[in-house]
Amino acid sequence: MSAPKNQIAVTVEDYLKQASVRVNAALEKYLPPESEAPTDLHKAVRYSTFAGGKRLRPALALASFEACHGQSDDDVLLAACALEMTHTFSLIHDDLPCMDNDDFRRGRPTNHKVFGEAIAILAGDSLLVYAFELLAKTGRAECIVTLARALGTKGMLGGQVVDIQSEGKKVGLETVNYIHRHKTAALIEASLVLGAQLAGAEDDVIAGLGAFGNKIGLAFQIVDDVLDLEGTTEALGKDAGSDLEKGKATYPAVVGIAASKDMARQLVDEAKLELRKLPIQSGILELIADYITTRVH
Amino acid sequence: MSAPKNQIAVTVEDYLKQASVRVNAALEKYLPPESEAPTDLHKAVRYSTFAGGKRLRPALALASFEACHGQSDDDVLLAACALEMTHTFSLIHDDLPCMDNDDFRRGRPTNHKVFGEAIAILAGDSLLVYAFELLAKTGRAECIVTLARALGTKGMLGGQVVDIQSEGKKVGLETVNYIHRHKTAALIEASLVLGAQLAGAEDDVIAGLGAFGNKIGLAFQIVDDVLDLEGTTEALGKDAGSDLEKGKATYPAVVGIAASKDMARQLVDEAKLELRKLPIQSGILELIADYITTRVH
Repeated sequence: MSAPKNQIAVTVEDYLKQASVRVNAALEKYLPPESEAPTDLHKAVRYSTFAGGKRLRPALALASFEACHGQSDDDVLLAACALEMTHTFSLIHDDLPCMDNDDFRRGRPTNHKVFGEAIAILAGDSLLVYAFELLAKTGRAECIVTLARALGTKGMLGGQVVDIQSEGKKVGLETVNYIHRHKTAALIEASLVLGAQLAGAEDDVIAGLGAFGNKIGLAFQIVDDVLDLEGTTEALGKDAGSDLEKGKATYPAVVGIAASKDMARQLVDEAKLELRKLPIQSGILELIADYITTRVH
Repeated sequence: MSAPKNQIAVTVEDYLKQASVRVNAALEKYLPPESEAPTDLHKAVRYSTFAGGKRLRPALALASFEACHGQSDDDVLLAACALEMTHTFSLIHDDLPCMDNDDFRRGRPTNHKVFGEAIAILAGDSLLVYAFELLAKTGRAECIVTLARALGTKGMLGGQVVDIQSEGKKVGLETVNYIHRHKTAALIEASLVLGAQLAGAEDDVIAGLGAFGNKIGLAFQIVDDVLDLEGTTEALGKDAGSDLEKGKATYPAVVGIAASKDMARQLVDEAKLELRKLPIQSGILELIADYITTRVH
């Protein structure tokens, strides 16, 4: 059997690379130049936005949109940029001295180390505001609600609070699950949902893609926890072993490395089963799901 | 001549009080209870939201909506809550040690003094996210754009950066103008614009109300600067004279108290002229404009 004519065989690395190029160009277009006042704020915003992130969330939104046969590319690119800005906002605030107190991120000094805490906080705030402005340009208020719920006190920000409060404490699997489902999986789930919403998908397809996103989002965080222990500082671009040092609530800390890897693999398998129930072209989404666990296997 | 039947004679104090009661009830409804997880985050969000603010921005949105004969009360209440949440977000972040380092606000310890810096930052972030979620529930994407532009790097957040960077420096009127137009006037302008947008007003009416809001917003900040010098710590609910102590860029510091008062009065007069050009019922808006300067005259 040959692939349908409208499918082009690509590797996942190629797909992510191409998505990244498109998203970077759009981010470049949508963010004010460094030369515009207030210049320090725009420099700080751009410093963390263009720090070499993988653009996984934007790629997932694009892939979800394409899987649902979405047509208007402009809108999904707006959403893709909004997702990356939101993710960058969360990294800047997470790295602050009163939060995770990280000096390095993606191999470079963190935002507050370069621009100071005040500008870093305001740069994070600015990215969050820009994210909603871009998403509003799609004219789709329901997409704003999707993003806001993924971020709010019962989403990413709630996860971050429990993460901080659990530091140095002995916590169980339930708490680690809460933290990572909220702090990481919620935004990855929203990436899939936004792509499907903008493609005009049916409610059950949107829900199915959301379930897929939640599972691979959790798998992604588990893999990240494992990498923190098994990776090198050079490869990670941040201090290896820092989770352990800070007493962070992680999967390896609670169930061990081997069980964490099994759990990630199982979540990806379950995620792919969710996909296969849906009447969509799921090829690239399955590849991205597999890619998440191959980072450590 | 008697007033039209649908106008009820009220004092500005009554109007602000009634608006405040409606907005407080709506905020109570829209914010998660303290008992819901994560409880500390919800406590921190509510602590600053219900700290006895005047609800000026919500009242202006409601008054603008009514002046434009708006019909659907539910939507403008959503916008009013979004404005107050946004304002509260900005206060929490402004008070942080790395920003203005304020220990008291509205007569009570600031958010970070009670909940710690990490939770305070995340509570501010949460209020910003909630603001966009509520506004999205109106289904009006253009309202999201209005709020986002008022807040972004060329709005409130830009003003805050220049404010911080000007501390302890000798700056001119142009810089003080920049700071206060961005940091304070932009959100007050947006309050008027949102009310008019939700009432379905014509573009020129929306623009006229925005111009009115910008002028009274600047007047409001000038009056605040004067009160910081002339008021007592008890009456202000925060340290009197703290602007001077911190070397803040303020109107009185640049042009003196008397000229600052004149400027505020002139801005209010100009604002009222803007109103009178518009085919709207501007009674209560004029009263609110006057109220702003009577706080110091």
